[in-house]
Amino acid sequence: MAPILMNSTGNEHSSYIQQVEYVKNPHLDSMEEDILYHLNLGTKTHDLPQMFGDVKFVCVGGSPNRMRSFAQFIHEQLGLPGNIADIRDICEGTDRYSMYKVGPVLSISHGMGVPSISIMLHELIKMLYHARCRDVIIFRIGTSGGVGLAAGTVVITDKAVDSFFRPQFEQVVLGKVIIRSTELDEDVAQELLQYSSELPDIPTVIGNTMCTHDFYEGQGRLDGALCSFSTEEKFEYLRKANEAGVRNIEMESTVFAAMCRVCNLKGLREIRFQHLMMLFWNISRDRSALWFISSRNVSDSSHKNM
Amino acid sequence: MAPILMNSTGNEHSSYIQQVEYVKNPHLDSMEEDILYHLNLGTKTHDLPQMFGDVKFVCVGGSPNRMRSFAQFIHEQLGLPGNIADIRDICEGTDRYSMYKVGPVLSISHGMGVPSISIMLHELIKMLYHARCRDVIIFRIGTSGGVGLAAGTVVITDKAVDSFFRPQFEQVVLGKVIIRSTELDEDVAQELLQYSSELPDIPTVIGNTMCTHDFYEGQGRLDGALCSFSTEEKFEYLRKANEAGVRNIEMESTVFAAMCRVCNLKGLREIRFQHLMMLFWNISRDRSALWFISSRNVSDSSHKNM
Repeated sequence: MAPILMNSTGNEHSSYIQQVEYVKNPHLDSMEEDILYHLNLGTKTHDLPQMFGDVKFVCVGGSPNRMRSFAQFIHEQLGLPGNIADIRDICEGTDRYSMYKVGPVLSISHGMGVPSISIMLHELIKMLYHARCRDVIIFRIGTSGGVGLAAGTVVITDKAVDSFFRPQFEQVVLGKVIIRSTELDEDVAQELLQYSSELPDIPTVIGNTMCTHDFYEGQGRLDGALCSFSTEEKFEYLRKANEAGVRNIEMESTVFAAMCRVCNLKGLREIRFQHLMMLFWNISRDRSALWFISSRNVSDSSHKNM
Repeated sequence: MAPILMNSTGNEHSSYIQQVEYVKNPHLDSMEEDILYHLNLGTKTHDLPQMFGDVKFVCVGGSPNRMRSFAQFIHEQLGLPGNIADIRDICEGTDRYSMYKVGPVLSISHGMGVPSISIMLHELIKMLYHARCRDVIIFRIGTSGGVGLAAGTVVITDKAVDSFFRPQFEQVVLGKVIIRSTELDEDVAQELLQYSSELPDIPTVIGNTMCTHDFYEGQGRLDGALCSFSTEEKFEYLRKANEAGVRNIEMESTVFAAMCRVCNLKGLREIRFQHLMMLFWNISRDRSALWFISSRNVSDSSHKNM
């Protein structure tokens, strides 16, 4: 364990003494210092338990501006003291990611694509570990392209699948391909769908979310700099995706699901989803292109047709 | 061709009438409008030939702040009129990418990882097409991890290779894997190496650049949230990479090389490299972690050991 944790005297979060093993790395405890480079944080430079020990919800999304707006929205919804204009970017010393904390909620940007969110998740998960957090639920919020759905429909993800409709993520480790599961919990998806019935104005479905590594050719778009297929071939692929249960397409869900699954970022059954979900539904009213995915094997998405 | 191009009256760049076919998409010319969404530009909302018709060099790198600093540096080096503080972000309406123009040089950020730079390249290449640019040279500038080299060494990339040391990029198109070459031009690499001899303080080598989709497990780092290999296995992989000619590791080079190759973004033989190169060498003095790759099948990198 890093020295700052053993030597820390500023940690008032005694309830978090029981360490949850979010990380899966035997090398970490022998490191003198852990520098979370892309977050501009570190175990020697920051008192991570004091800064983040009370975190219960982590909401991640691509755009820094959107995640700041989300933090301001949550601040107002929770009735926290202070001015929303004063909520500062904890990662302001770097332009890689932005991070805001409002009460027990962290709101973090991750950029676009699997590699970009992967770097952030590695350092976020280590940060939660060093801060001795427990029972954390993590959500991904963002835009996605719908498949066979009306614009603005919310999708609660059943499984995150790759471009071949497989519920898996391929991670290359030292030149070898390792397959990680992205299977999600059906019960929690149903639980979320039930909450959605309280908001009849927002059409909601459960379906698979396809994660691609390319926005143009990978998602069948006809308007990239490169396009070698016809309109008919595009729709044939989307038809097959739809048959495989795909209801929306984005660029981060498989690695998000796989890493959270491996790192036990699932939270506890008894955590009350309803309040947080209502917040998300409310924000969805104003933004037709929000979606989110939870490491508790739940995701939600509203999105436009392609 | 989009209406704005046919109707444009503000284009004074008559020398660019001959259209260079950077794009490879038969659908584009039948589109009424082309919205470059992630750059916050479009053919109906912006006069792209007037804004960008004189562009000759495009320099891309991950960090928005670094690309702003680079634009300011180029502005000073070229002795352009005006204050560097007034150089505005052309993409300021979006937080996905930043873009600065100083004389004939564009400086653009692309975030981290293949998917992120891929989105930017699609829209950049279409922008150059709509702006009727020709003879454009594009460079990637950024940090990378060195393999078996002293910190601060500059690498001129011979080939961009994947995690299996193959000079190729796998692009998934409508669920099918397409292999694109990332082979680079040996002659131009030698030309760049020759220029480097004028700057003896900066060690420079030609070597292969490995592109991974993950910063931690993919590059053999021991300090991620996940790590399932030993120190010995890490160094064994890096030894094999070194044997395969790999001298540095980063996260964007294969798709950059592949897309620029397919889209003819190679520039002309007779363009004088030397002045631009000297600028880059100078900036390398101040920043030990710069590297760059050119679509003229040249890349250059300085980087730290892992």
